Amino acid sequence: MYTVIKTDGRAKRAELKTVHGTIQTPVFMNVGTAAAIKGAVSTADLKEIGTQVELSNTYHLHVRPGDRLIREMGGLHKFMVWDRPILTDSGGFQVFSLAGMRKIKEEGVTFRSHVDGHSIFMGPEESMQIQSNLGSTIAMAFDECAPAKAEKSYVEASVARTTRWLVRCRQEMDRLNAMPDTVNPSQMLFGINQGAVYTDIRIEHAKQLAEMELDGYAVGGLAVGETHEEMYHVLDETVPYLPQDRPTYLMGVGTPANILEAVDRGIDFFDCVYPSRNGRHGHVYTRYGKMNLLNAKYEKDERPIEDNCKCPACRYSRAYIRHLLKAKEMLGMRLCVLHNLYFYNHLMEDIRGAIETGTYAAFKKERLEMLQVYKKQEYS
Amino acid sequence: MYTVIKTDGRAKRAELKTVHGTIQTPVFMNVGTAAAIKGAVSTADLKEIGTQVELSNTYHLHVRPGDRLIREMGGLHKFMVWDRPILTDSGGFQVFSLAGMRKIKEEGVTFRSHVDGHSIFMGPEESMQIQSNLGSTIAMAFDECAPAKAEKSYVEASVARTTRWLVRCRQEMDRLNAMPDTVNPSQMLFGINQGAVYTDIRIEHAKQLAEMELDGYAVGGLAVGETHEEMYHVLDETVPYLPQDRPTYLMGVGTPANILEAVDRGIDFFDCVYPSRNGRHGHVYTRYGKMNLLNAKYEKDERPIEDNCKCPACRYSRAYIRHLLKAKEMLGMRLCVLHNLYFYNHLMEDIRGAIETGTYAAFKKERLEMLQVYKKQEYS
Repeated sequence: MYTVIKTDGRAKRAELKTVHGTIQTPVFMNVGTAAAIKGAVSTADLKEIGTQVELSNTYHLHVRPGDRLIREMGGLHKFMVWDRPILTDSGGFQVFSLAGMRKIKEEGVTFRSHVDGHSIFMGPEESMQIQSNLGSTIAMAFDECAPAKAEKSYVEASVARTTRWLVRCRQEMDRLNAMPDTVNPSQMLFGINQGAVYTDIRIEHAKQLAEMELDGYAVGGLAVGETHEEMYHVLDETVPYLPQDRPTYLMGVGTPANILEAVDRGIDFFDCVYPSRNGRHGHVYTRYGKMNLLNAKYEKDERPIEDNCKCPACRYSRAYIRHLLKAKEMLGMRLCVLHNLYFYNHLMEDIRGAIETGTYAAFKKERLEMLQVYKKQEYS
Repeated sequence: MYTVIKTDGRAKRAELKTVHGTIQTPVFMNVGTAAAIKGAVSTADLKEIGTQVELSNTYHLHVRPGDRLIREMGGLHKFMVWDRPILTDSGGFQVFSLAGMRKIKEEGVTFRSHVDGHSIFMGPEESMQIQSNLGSTIAMAFDECAPAKAEKSYVEASVARTTRWLVRCRQEMDRLNAMPDTVNPSQMLFGINQGAVYTDIRIEHAKQLAEMELDGYAVGGLAVGETHEEMYHVLDETVPYLPQDRPTYLMGVGTPANILEAVDRGIDFFDCVYPSRNGRHGHVYTRYGKMNLLNAKYEKDERPIEDNCKCPACRYSRAYIRHLLKAKEMLGMRLCVLHNLYFYNHLMEDIRGAIETGTYAAFKKERLEMLQVYKKQEYS
């Protein structure tokens, strides 16, 4: 059950009730690819840093440890010891970006495992079966994520196939949810809008998706090579055709600025590997922009990453965390990842507050300016 | 101020009052080589797993980030955000085991940094100065740790030099503690008994050390290649000559069985890299012995590492932690290290309880037998 509590321009403050608890949106989902957040972050840590939704990757878990094993263990929630919502992607993105030697047919895709090279077939039914075995709160439809710069004719054919695949996903998910021994009989299904940067294809696809009355709608295939302006333009043109009484999820996005802009265009679900990936490289987020803690200027900096931050890293100094990173101590990465996820989770909290008070436009402007402070200092 | 609360045979239940709080002994110190416990464990975690004393390595911190930097940051306690006792080793062990191309003279040792190869000189005064800059609770004397199988004539000369070095350590530490701007003016100094497996040299050295009225006495140069029986024999012969009204520290030891035996021979301070190093390889300790979580038999094992364990890892299943280790997720290593340190810290708690109730002999026998259970199962 999705309820819009407040709108402010096109920004939505909403909540999605699920069997694993209610999600307050806009929300940033924290990516735990292989049933763990990279950087030695556990589900116990996620509770401490304000994570609402954990996101795991269907492809990775299918390959290792195997979705059947996770099902035997009682599903992904029990396996990870996480009682809040989990979203699983469809595996499509990884199949088209990570796996080698793929072959696309109407039935699905044959590709090679990145772990041991063995041949795997995945189509809409297989993706739903794997996600059903995982028992996630929200499953994503199996789609093709065409390259941003693909030829229009290719994108048209690809989107048409993705629509046909969605029908099969829906049927299979309905069948699986009705099985007596299914892990999560209330598993939701989100469809995915594609079309690269061709807004006419995107709009036509959005209209088709809207007719299917799904649990939620994602915009996929962005943040894969196009400019930020192209991305915002696609959102401007496409999101109005997606049902605004359902969750709207921008997949794989993005920077704090991207999120501030996309919320203003009606998006309320996000996920991105930036906070964890950047954290592992010592790049940390603050409201004044990103800092590279490996920079020599932090060598004797006794301040925390961010003043007044209540994350588990900000009880330590920049100097200490920098030392850990230089000494290649895993703790350095862990602290940076914890800080970054906390930062993203609390950015969303601030965004929700601004929409609630009807001040989102001013809030966005202020935050976008603040995010430039360190950059301006560095080049001034 | 060291107070023996209870003895049971030669086992001592004592406490050592320090400026950073009181240490209850027997105690296992948790090794954080470069001002961090390997395996992404922070000082906040240490409080959760019952750590009393953190141990850091003088050599590593001198090389990176530099003891002068740590002094500028207010000392190691402030740098790591740890308000309980810290023991620093002297750097001697690392100089003789890690560093390349060393040259020993009466003044001290010249060697090459393992980080960038630059030439470093360290003698008794330098070791004290570095440890004073770190401001640890307990500093260790600078000694030579001769190889277990060294010729007797070499060991004799080495121990004689270590004694001369100890006199210089004591003088230098007294001088540094009296400086107006010293980090920790109450820094304690422990001397180190050496002599390889030659008990006559060990005993003679112990008698010389006892005359110096130090804050504590360590037995060094064990667990470096000799058998367990040789080690116990050295303890049987040597410890009685060390003042039993002072802390007695067996450096770098060891397995749970080693600790159970050494406590029975009057030792009350321990440290070892086993729990963290083994944890990083998926080897975890239980009261029934060690388990290798990478073993296929744990693939679907829904039990925690150890039943009723309250450590942060034992809310997860063996199957989940095994998956993390197989997927090379840092979280797997972190959970195993947390469990192992918790296990060691709580083994010491049980040891203290047994001495208090005067049942140490029976307790030791029972625990040594329990530690064999998994091994017997595996080979039965």
